[in-house]
Amino acid sequence: MIKYDFSKKNGKPLYQYLYECLKSDIQNGRLTARTKLPSKREMAKDNGISVKTVMNAYEQLVVEGYLISKEKRGYFVADVEAVPDYQMEPAEYSPIYTEEKWLVDFTASNAVYEKFPFSMWRKVMREVLSDSDLKLVRRAHFLGVEELRKAIAAYLYRARGIMVSPECIVIGAGIEYLYGKLIKILPPDSVYGVENPGYKKIPRIYEEYGLKWKPVAMDSNGISMESLRKNGVNIIHVSPEHHFPLGTVMSAARRQELLSWAGEEAGRYIIEDDYDCEFRYYSRTIPPLLNAGRSHRIIYMNTFNKTLAPSIRISYMILPEKLMRRYINSSNFYSNTSSSCEQYALAKFINEGYFERHLSRMKKYYRIQGERLIRILKQSALLPAVTITGGSSGTHLLVKVDTSLTDTEIKWAARQQRIQLSCLSEFCVEVKPEYQHILVLSYSDINETIIREAVRRLGNIFVEW
Amino acid sequence: MIKYDFSKKNGKPLYQYLYECLKSDIQNGRLTARTKLPSKREMAKDNGISVKTVMNAYEQLVVEGYLISKEKRGYFVADVEAVPDYQMEPAEYSPIYTEEKWLVDFTASNAVYEKFPFSMWRKVMREVLSDSDLKLVRRAHFLGVEELRKAIAAYLYRARGIMVSPECIVIGAGIEYLYGKLIKILPPDSVYGVENPGYKKIPRIYEEYGLKWKPVAMDSNGISMESLRKNGVNIIHVSPEHHFPLGTVMSAARRQELLSWAGEEAGRYIIEDDYDCEFRYYSRTIPPLLNAGRSHRIIYMNTFNKTLAPSIRISYMILPEKLMRRYINSSNFYSNTSSSCEQYALAKFINEGYFERHLSRMKKYYRIQGERLIRILKQSALLPAVTITGGSSGTHLLVKVDTSLTDTEIKWAARQQRIQLSCLSEFCVEVKPEYQHILVLSYSDINETIIREAVRRLGNIFVEW
Repeated sequence: MIKYDFSKKNGKPLYQYLYECLKSDIQNGRLTARTKLPSKREMAKDNGISVKTVMNAYEQLVVEGYLISKEKRGYFVADVEAVPDYQMEPAEYSPIYTEEKWLVDFTASNAVYEKFPFSMWRKVMREVLSDSDLKLVRRAHFLGVEELRKAIAAYLYRARGIMVSPECIVIGAGIEYLYGKLIKILPPDSVYGVENPGYKKIPRIYEEYGLKWKPVAMDSNGISMESLRKNGVNIIHVSPEHHFPLGTVMSAARRQELLSWAGEEAGRYIIEDDYDCEFRYYSRTIPPLLNAGRSHRIIYMNTFNKTLAPSIRISYMILPEKLMRRYINSSNFYSNTSSSCEQYALAKFINEGYFERHLSRMKKYYRIQGERLIRILKQSALLPAVTITGGSSGTHLLVKVDTSLTDTEIKWAARQQRIQLSCLSEFCVEVKPEYQHILVLSYSDINETIIREAVRRLGNIFVEW
Repeated sequence: MIKYDFSKKNGKPLYQYLYECLKSDIQNGRLTARTKLPSKREMAKDNGISVKTVMNAYEQLVVEGYLISKEKRGYFVADVEAVPDYQMEPAEYSPIYTEEKWLVDFTASNAVYEKFPFSMWRKVMREVLSDSDLKLVRRAHFLGVEELRKAIAAYLYRARGIMVSPECIVIGAGIEYLYGKLIKILPPDSVYGVENPGYKKIPRIYEEYGLKWKPVAMDSNGISMESLRKNGVNIIHVSPEHHFPLGTVMSAARRQELLSWAGEEAGRYIIEDDYDCEFRYYSRTIPPLLNAGRSHRIIYMNTFNKTLAPSIRISYMILPEKLMRRYINSSNFYSNTSSSCEQYALAKFINEGYFERHLSRMKKYYRIQGERLIRILKQSALLPAVTITGGSSGTHLLVKVDTSLTDTEIKWAARQQRIQLSCLSEFCVEVKPEYQHILVLSYSDINETIIREAVRRLGNIFVEW
């Protein structure tokens, strides 16, 4: 006879309590393998419960494999190894982000969150949601929502003169994600070239994928063709509109050289990263490489991270036909990674002109921010600034200082003053002497009083040392 | 003297027209390298435009590298190779999706789009958007929005008895994406085991990443331990709650064997795919492996694709501490891939009880759908159904038919009747005889009249042949 104390059931349903008691007894070995359990009727009688309750508990244990039901013979305990009671390991992680409190973080090149066009975005999101259309819940096209690809194609024509069919555009939840997909359709055994100096993320992605990569030097016209050729690179990542962090615009002659290079051998590709192309202040933006020919060797990439917000996970790339065919073959069974609702909202946001209105507002804002920072830097009597470059595009300045401090010492001293900054040398794989003692100051979102104080403190670093 | 016909400027600003004329002449070689251009004043006079207009055009060409400005000497044409005029290649792709019109698609195991809880979802989305909180636009925590990780942890405890800290949860835009990240933190040179039969996507992902994988046989208790050991697998993907497409629940004894196996050697891991665990109709859901011990060797995965909608790109995995540390090191510089707004909305949706309400509604709906399909199949005089299994969990049935047709012939004949279906053999790497002549019928979203007609047509296939 098996009898449990049902007064201890603690509000649980009867069958669940019985199930748990039996399961625990089997797991602990109190009920051993091949033991025949009392019949449902006996068990019900002994415990003062209904036959239905017993049956529910027995059946659950059968489904889970703790009991075996043999027709006309009854229920037997299965051969389950005795295990100690389940104990969850404590999940103790050290805090993942230790957010330091800075006076100024000159390394943040984010969108200015406070300037996000909430009311316009809310309006388009609400309109999209009000449709209650099934398109919002269906699995989207694996390249991304068609309306958005059309809107992006039309925008690219207006803003960059790019003529591209929406079928050549791949939408994905961030540049890193798209990079991961792109790598798989580029020739295997490729050697990837990375601008040196340049974005730190690019080589890190290559490392993560176990790819061969080489730093390629920069000169005043853009990427150095000599360095590119010397390193045996066949896939080169460039930002011709303006290089980060040097700000270099790739010259027309260099563009032609680079395009010729791409055409010389099969398997050569140019990844044109047009990040921040939207922010050029005193002249028109520089036309993209993609418009200059050999577009079958160019992958064009951009994102709405900075132009809108990083929390809206929408980036895109334009693939040449050959790569697009490979992409379709390898990826059409995957789902698109961006939220459909936000893709529809962004399409509306672009088509109704809100995006370009927001961009022109931000362009003005960033221009003024840059001009102000330059003015304050020039007024500073303390800061041994030799040259200040930048301000005509993007949202950072390069400030070369005359100092005997090493870049590490500069950063450390700034940190003591609660100023977070980068030096150009951090963006280099191999640091040339001319890339030393250059501060990289991003200014997208800092108010005047704080900038004045930050520049004062920065000046003191060089005075005191 | 250079003189352009400004009557052809076609509404463009003067400076832009001048810029385009000069650029075109340089590109076509009409203006050759090192040519000195007329001074701004001369050019202005010759063309009847202002000096400022000329300066704007010249400066843009300097920025782009077509002209070189030499102090006190003037503007010179840069050494730019002559290139043919830019022509975009036509982007002609064959249509990517050729949507066939089916009477019934028995392969679709999507969420039922028509049942999406639009009004509740719209409500939470609107509330989130109304906040206008900066958290909506900021770069989210790389593991995913904390509120959502908390909501998922609490839900998992209520629904699955899983006790997990929100710090162990990684949110990402889809299972495929998470898989791509997971692979990178698992031991290199791993051999991945795939249930045979099983999901077709899993080996495809492994192939894409160039990983070694082996099919592992199934028996009536779940994954075959003998096959697992024989194949030298160290990472095994399983769905213990119910296997797809067999429907097998992993028995308690097999669970213990599998957990013991995982503990025998370093580097062994179990990927517990709990997809569709929410849909068990006549008993409680089967507790996850994760609750049975050795949780440091288990990666738990699930998604809101089916329980909510595939267009809301939110999936998650629970990582054991060691893997989580690796994940943090390798991925904390990437952005989270899911939309922040939808993450906040989903957190609210779960916390306010809407999610579980929706699930219980869908559970009832799917149960009734399954019961109806079984009834109709059993009533069919034509269909030589030997056994029908399934219906107690998930949203598909297995129908073994007595036929001399091959599976390919069955599928082809069904296609002629505008019925899309799968056979169990398609989910196999090596097809055993007992896996032949078994139809896999997903029924999440088909109305009664159509099912009756489809079953009638299916029956005819076997009568006619």
